[in-house]
Amino acid sequence: MAGRKEEELKDLTLLGNQGTKYLFEYSPEVLEVFENKHPDRDYFVKFNCPEFTSLCPKTGQPDFATIYISYIPDKKCVESKSLKLYLFSFRNHGDFHEDCVNIIMNDLIKVMEPRYIEVWGKFTPRGGISIDPYCNWGRPGTKYEKMAEYRLMNHDLYPEKVDNR
Amino acid sequence: MAGRKEEELKDLTLLGNQGTKYLFEYSPEVLEVFENKHPDRDYFVKFNCPEFTSLCPKTGQPDFATIYISYIPDKKCVESKSLKLYLFSFRNHGDFHEDCVNIIMNDLIKVMEPRYIEVWGKFTPRGGISIDPYCNWGRPGTKYEKMAEYRLMNHDLYPEKVDNR
Amino acid sequence: MAGRKEEELKDLTLLGNQGTKYLFEYSPEVLEVFENKHPDRDYFVKFNCPEFTSLCPKTGQPDFATIYISYIPDKKCVESKSLKLYLFSFRNHGDFHEDCVNIIMNDLIKVMEPRYIEVWGKFTPRGGISIDPYCNWGRPGTKYEKMAEYRLMNHDLYPEKVDNR
Amino acid sequence: MAGRKEEELKDLTLLGNQGTKYLFEYSPEVLEVFENKHPDRDYFVKFNCPEFTSLCPKTGQPDFATIYISYIPDKKCVESKSLKLYLFSFRNHGDFHEDCVNIIMNDLIKVMEPRYIEVWGKFTPRGGISIDPYCNWGRPGTKYEKMAEYRLMNHDLYPEKVDNR
Amino acid sequence: MAGRKEEELKDLTLLGNQGTKYLFEYSPEVLEVFENKHPDRDYFVKFNCPEFTSLCPKTGQPDFATIYISYIPDKKCVESKSLKLYLFSFRNHGDFHEDCVNIIMNDLIKVMEPRYIEVWGKFTPRGGISIDPYCNWGRPGTKYEKMAEYRLMNHDLYPEKVDNR
Amino acid sequence: MAGRKEEELKDLTLLGNQGTKYLFEYSPEVLEVFENKHPDRDYFVKFNCPEFTSLCPKTGQPDFATIYISYIPDKKCVESKSLKLYLFSFRNHGDFHEDCVNIIMNDLIKVMEPRYIEVWGKFTPRGGISIDPYCNWGRPGTKYEKMAEYRLMNHDLYPEKVDNR
Amino acid sequence: MAGRKEEELKDLTLLGNQGTKYLFEYSPEVLEVFENKHPDRDYFVKFNCPEFTSLCPKTGQPDFATIYISYIPDKKCVESKSLKLYLFSFRNHGDFHEDCVNIIMNDLIKVMEPRYIEVWGKFTPRGGISIDPYCNWGRPGTKYEKMAEYRLMNHDLYPEKVDNR
Amino acid sequence: MAGRKEEELKDLTLLGNQGTKYLFEYSPEVLEVFENKHPDRDYFVKFNCPEFTSLCPKTGQPDFATIYISYIPDKKCVESKSLKLYLFSFRNHGDFHEDCVNIIMNDLIKVMEPRYIEVWGKFTPRGGISIDPYCNWGRPGTKYEKMAEYRLMNHDLYPEKVDNR
Amino acid sequence: MAGRKEEELKDLTLLGNQGTKYLFEYSPEVLEVFENKHPDRDYFVKFNCPEFTSLCPKTGQPDFATIYISYIPDKKCVESKSLKLYLFSFRNHGDFHEDCVNIIMNDLIKVMEPRYIEVWGKFTPRGGISIDPYCNWGRPGTKYEKMAEYRLMNHDLYPEKVDNR
Amino acid sequence: MAGRKEEELKDLTLLGNQGTKYLFEYSPEVLEVFENKHPDRDYFVKFNCPEFTSLCPKTGQPDFATIYISYIPDKKCVESKSLKLYLFSFRNHGDFHEDCVNIIMNDLIKVMEPRYIEVWGKFTPRGGISIDPYCNWGRPGTKYEKMAEYRLMNHDLYPEKVDNR
Ligand SMILES: [Ca+2]
Ligand SMILES: [Ca+2]
Ligand SMILES: [Ca+2]
Ligand SMILES: [Ca+2]
Ligand SMILES: [Ca+2]
Ligand SMILES: [Ca+2]
Ligand SMILES: [Ca+2]
Ligand SMILES: [Ca+2]
Ligand SMILES: [Ca+2]
Ligand SMILES: [Ca+2]
Ligand SMILES: [Ca+2]
Ligand SMILES: [Ca+2]
Ligand SMILES: [Ca+2]
Ligand SMILES: [Ca+2]
Ligand SMILES: [Ca+2]
Ligand SMILES: [Ca+2]
Repeated sequence: MAGRKEEELKDLTLLGNQGTKYLFEYSPEVLEVFENKHPDRDYFVKFNCPEFTSLCPKTGQPDFATIYISYIPDKKCVESKSLKLYLFSFRNHGDFHEDCVNIIMNDLIKVMEPRYIEVWGKFTPRGGISIDPYCNWGRPGTKYEKMAEYRLMNHDLYPEKVDNR
Repeated sequence: MAGRKEEELKDLTLLGNQGTKYLFEYSPEVLEVFENKHPDRDYFVKFNCPEFTSLCPKTGQPDFATIYISYIPDKKCVESKSLKLYLFSFRNHGDFHEDCVNIIMNDLIKVMEPRYIEVWGKFTPRGGISIDPYCNWGRPGTKYEKMAEYRLMNHDLYPEKVDNR
Repeated sequence: MAGRKEEELKDLTLLGNQGTKYLFEYSPEVLEVFENKHPDRDYFVKFNCPEFTSLCPKTGQPDFATIYISYIPDKKCVESKSLKLYLFSFRNHGDFHEDCVNIIMNDLIKVMEPRYIEVWGKFTPRGGISIDPYCNWGRPGTKYEKMAEYRLMNHDLYPEKVDNR
Repeated sequence: MAGRKEEELKDLTLLGNQGTKYLFEYSPEVLEVFENKHPDRDYFVKFNCPEFTSLCPKTGQPDFATIYISYIPDKKCVESKSLKLYLFSFRNHGDFHEDCVNIIMNDLIKVMEPRYIEVWGKFTPRGGISIDPYCNWGRPGTKYEKMAEYRLMNHDLYPEKVDNR
Repeated sequence: MAGRKEEELKDLTLLGNQGTKYLFEYSPEVLEVFENKHPDRDYFVKFNCPEFTSLCPKTGQPDFATIYISYIPDKKCVESKSLKLYLFSFRNHGDFHEDCVNIIMNDLIKVMEPRYIEVWGKFTPRGGISIDPYCNWGRPGTKYEKMAEYRLMNHDLYPEKVDNR
Repeated sequence: MAGRKEEELKDLTLLGNQGTKYLFEYSPEVLEVFENKHPDRDYFVKFNCPEFTSLCPKTGQPDFATIYISYIPDKKCVESKSLKLYLFSFRNHGDFHEDCVNIIMNDLIKVMEPRYIEVWGKFTPRGGISIDPYCNWGRPGTKYEKMAEYRLMNHDLYPEKVDNR
Repeated sequence: MAGRKEEELKDLTLLGNQGTKYLFEYSPEVLEVFENKHPDRDYFVKFNCPEFTSLCPKTGQPDFATIYISYIPDKKCVESKSLKLYLFSFRNHGDFHEDCVNIIMNDLIKVMEPRYIEVWGKFTPRGGISIDPYCNWGRPGTKYEKMAEYRLMNHDLYPEKVDNR
Repeated sequence: MAGRKEEELKDLTLLGNQGTKYLFEYSPEVLEVFENKHPDRDYFVKFNCPEFTSLCPKTGQPDFATIYISYIPDKKCVESKSLKLYLFSFRNHGDFHEDCVNIIMNDLIKVMEPRYIEVWGKFTPRGGISIDPYCNWGRPGTKYEKMAEYRLMNHDLYPEKVDNR
Repeated sequence: MAGRKEEELKDLTLLGNQGTKYLFEYSPEVLEVFENKHPDRDYFVKFNCPEFTSLCPKTGQPDFATIYISYIPDKKCVESKSLKLYLFSFRNHGDFHEDCVNIIMNDLIKVMEPRYIEVWGKFTPRGGISIDPYCNWGRPGTKYEKMAEYRLMNHDLYPEKVDNR
Repeated sequence: MAGRKEEELKDLTLLGNQGTKYLFEYSPEVLEVFENKHPDRDYFVKFNCPEFTSLCPKTGQPDFATIYISYIPDKKCVESKSLKLYLFSFRNHGDFHEDCVNIIMNDLIKVMEPRYIEVWGKFTPRGGISIDPYCNWGRPGTKYEKMAEYRLMNHDLYPEKVDNR
């Protein structure tokens, strides 16, 4: 066994690239994918992204969040450096928390066409209240659509302890 | 993509407003909503609210709690600054813990007409005992009513460790 | 809206009462209830009680526990100060851990006639071993009986880490 | 109500006994039981046992574990001091981790004839890897057999964080 | 009862062996198994492995992870020292995180032929994002295949808090 | 030995008193003291007060804090129920965080005339930043004045981890 | 080397004794000591005692605390089972928190005549406030008196986080 | 006593101001101060700032940190909303971690002329390593200069556990 | 640079040795040392040993502890596998907790002749109380003797939270 | 103000460099430094490095550690990417834990000539025991030499809790 070969990686233009350019305006086109080598199997990939920041659409004030993304790949996996650049591109973009997680999920669905995906944002508080939106999606007409419904029904029965400190 | 536009936000009178007036008597009318831009999808929004305080209806002593609110929006989302003002309006209001969480949920149902909602209050102890009421609701006659029943049946199988310190 | 009125609270003889008498022999008669104002809805009330102490029936040695009580009220709720006095009444009473949680649940069923109830005791160790009994109950012949069976089947799949320190 | 009476406890020869003899060779005969006073009800009893030690069958090196035991009693409960002595009797006994938890469960089934039982051992690492075997059992031909299958299927979906420190 | 006998252990060439040779190139042949003495029972064995390291296939940079492996044995159990050597053999091997967990599971399926198995890798972040792939497998055509599907559907509803510190 | 006698407690008008009146405007006169029975010894008394709330002097918005108070008594100790009422009296009072802790300390110095005292407030964040003022005082011209200087110099070398969640 | 010999232990009447009688009225006479075998060396012994309970001297309500005791022995060490019985003897005794820790320290000074000793009580809250008194003592005219002064001056610069839950 | 009066707050142009403008280029001029009302006393004010972000000066990649600022005021205190705006102004500014904390301290010294100040930055990792610079300063020629030296000598003897997760 | 050479390690008979014999009676002679290659520098070596077990000298009941050992080497360092075997040799040895830590320190002083050493044992509770003895030693007549006195005076000002669970 | 200029960074050959080569044999020459822009001030820089791995010099088995490095710069700071490469270069290098931390400190002294430096390694256990060596150094003949002595004397008075899980 030899691991991923040079050839399998040739479409990844960002990983290990020196001259990375960081975009701070919403740029979904930066997302890159690579081939899933285990398509005969359902399995999960999760990204933990604690360095997300965007702007409040009304006041322009910076917002901060940790974003958790989990998906079951079909033919493609999203490459993590391109995901980093994509998330950084919200830096000077203004939108509600509820909109951000839905947009992120929509863009990942478009580029990966996964079997299942979910996105959970956990934002820091403003005025003593923090907001944590969660959305998910399963390919329509498949068992993954039912999976999405099942996971939503079971979502977050145990809210984590939050005391704003 | 441009995020929420100025026009979409024009009905929000409180967010970013300088002359905010803080009401300390129960004021459900202060709640404001905005349009849900993802109504084709079921997703959760959670508010973590660790700065809730009210009064004991019998002794007048202040009570303190963290309130967790989770809902699946239909056409409307509740704006978080108005939610803050609403919760602050319990400051000089006297009621039992069990009543507070039910009232909060009733008011949010009225103003948002959500698909599903739940409210969990975790109060600080009096006399060595703390009380944590939890209520939920799904729109009658829909799958969300069953969802409420399912989530109640699975509620809090793992009570958090509490030692009053 | 006005919260609980003076009149609704007139049967509560203990809450806010100056001359509280603490009983240290098993006294189930001290329990008091008040009216549930939300009987059209199933919801949970949980009590966290980390100040429980009783005696070993064989050696007379004091035992200590945290007791967690959760129930779905029907017509009545148990008042928390009377619950405190009731639990304090085990102070000089001798019984096995397994018996204590069953007795507490039996007494609360009798006084509240709830739809559903569960009691979990987590005791400190003797001889390096600690004991945590858990019992529950749903009104026979109703969906709450099935709820009790379901919650027992799902009980404590993740035992908390205990190292006796 | 009077708690456990002297007479009910007369078969317990170890609890409160001064001349306790500690056996360090596998001694299942030391286990003692007492009558379950609540046989009309399914309820759980859990033992947390962080002071378990045995020997590696190949190298003779001491092994250490925390053992979690949960069961639903039928007619009998195991007395905790006798359980302590039983677990101490593995002190100079050599066996694989996988075997220890199965043997403990087998012995407890024999002496208590419970409705349901499960045993989870969490051992300290050797060579950077730790092993946590888990077994369970429900009385064959009853709903408890299905309960065992259900709990196995749901076992440990959230492995605790282990970093060997 | 005497525990594992010398004879039962005679095929284990690595455990307790002085001259252990550490291989740092992918070496699945190093895995050894021993007989499962409890084949009449479904039970879980979990390995916690916080000392996993491999290389990035593109940049050659070292990666670090904690690997959690859980399985239900059939006729054979994997011996933990051989598992250690196997995992150490990824030390100078380059592969994507998503590939590593799938390869580890494939190799363990081949050598143990278990009833059920799952592998979860939790890697440290690169560029602020960490990746946690999870795969599982149940023997095709048996109830364990359904178990795999069930556990995937319920996987990681509560992502652990990650803040890169 | 008999503990505190009825007579020693006769000046405490609030402890155990049924008709407690809760004042929500700054009321230092509510503080009560009792005799220190161990004046020949320097010792510390600490109060943990996680239920403090006041108003922002500019915006009127409620603020929340945990207040820690530690002192070495001289002739008098402050009674804890009167301290509770005193702290509750900031409920509708507006002042900066920096002022609140200094005022609390000044009032306690006046009523107790302690040898040494310190007050630390830990507030919840506004706009992503939380403020924790700390002041202390030792009786001028005594070793306690030097103690105050020493403790200030060693104050908070290890700021607690704060992430606003 | 042979460890403590039977003869060295002959004055310990409580350790391993079957007929232990638990006293619930303040009983300092129950304390027993044994010989310190390392008197040529200053070293610390600490007792962690999380099972302390007493009564409020005014209201009779039970109080609960964890008591930490640390001392440098001179000729005698206090035996831990007798310490347990002594602490249990506060069970039906009424006193202020500030008095309890001073009394415990006084009694241990009398029976052990240690070089240095300190006692810290951490009580559960009443009315939202918890009290943690701390006292210490060094033998007058020795370096241990200075040690006491030094440790008091450095006491508790980092109050633990308390949120009453 | 009346708290801060309107007049005392008239120089604060940002607190409670609706039209706050967020600057994302280094803007030390945004800092505002108010009068310290307790100048006769040395006391500490600490700011916890977990929402700091800047850019790497070489690669342009966003960096994230929690900044802890502690100071002893002299005549002036820094207003927290202006501090927020100041810290946000590093958003699109590129500098090394070591430089950022020194610059922040220099700017605060200039605007407040405090007696003592310290700044500690805790950044998220890049390439598996995180950097935490800490600087402090006491007014030259005063005891605060010695205080700075003392606190540096005692700085961070207990590095927090960091595992990049 | 080549690290430790084969020759430097030739006196270590236990490390990597296959036929390790585990002794369960007190065996100080098993301790082995190797040369300190950095004798021109004072530095600390700490051993964390959470797998310590011994017997109660009076009752024979097993005791369990975590032992922390820290020392500044002079010419010799103790080899960790021999330390493991030494600590395992207390397995069937009966002694008081206070004696165990003093004996361990005495034996390590004898074999290593360190500049400074300290030993802290943290035992699991019996009868609700746990005991944590701590002793230290500096070479008489050197600055290390003063170091021992200094560290004892500063020992454990912050007792860890213990709740026996 | 403009932050670090391109010119100031021109000697850093590794930061942002695409073709990074990872060396796995001890390579101190890879370390690079940049100019300290704040040489008039003593301040600390700390590196948290949880991804350190080396080999046992006797058995060849991989070891794992978290390394904490803190220093006060003089004219130069070590660049963190070069530090990463340096630490990675121990990957196939065999040495004792005690030697590794001393070597790392020696190399950093040579390349940076700092005023003060300390290195703390926290390794994972072998045979149930983990080893944490700590060394430090201050420039001879300066106050930093005394600082090193002071910090060693105060080192690790509170060993972190280690239970090997
Ligand atoms: Ca805020
Ligand atoms: Ca928190
Ligand atoms: Ca209370
Ligand atoms: Ca707690
Ligand atoms: Ca614990
Ligand atoms: Ca090991
Ligand atoms: Ca751990
Ligand atoms: Ca990173
Ligand atoms: Ca973390
Ligand atoms: Ca936090
Ligand atoms: Ca708490
Ligand atoms: Ca990284
Ligand atoms: Ca961490
Ligand atoms: Ca015990
Ligand atoms: Ca604990
Ligand atoms: Ca641990």
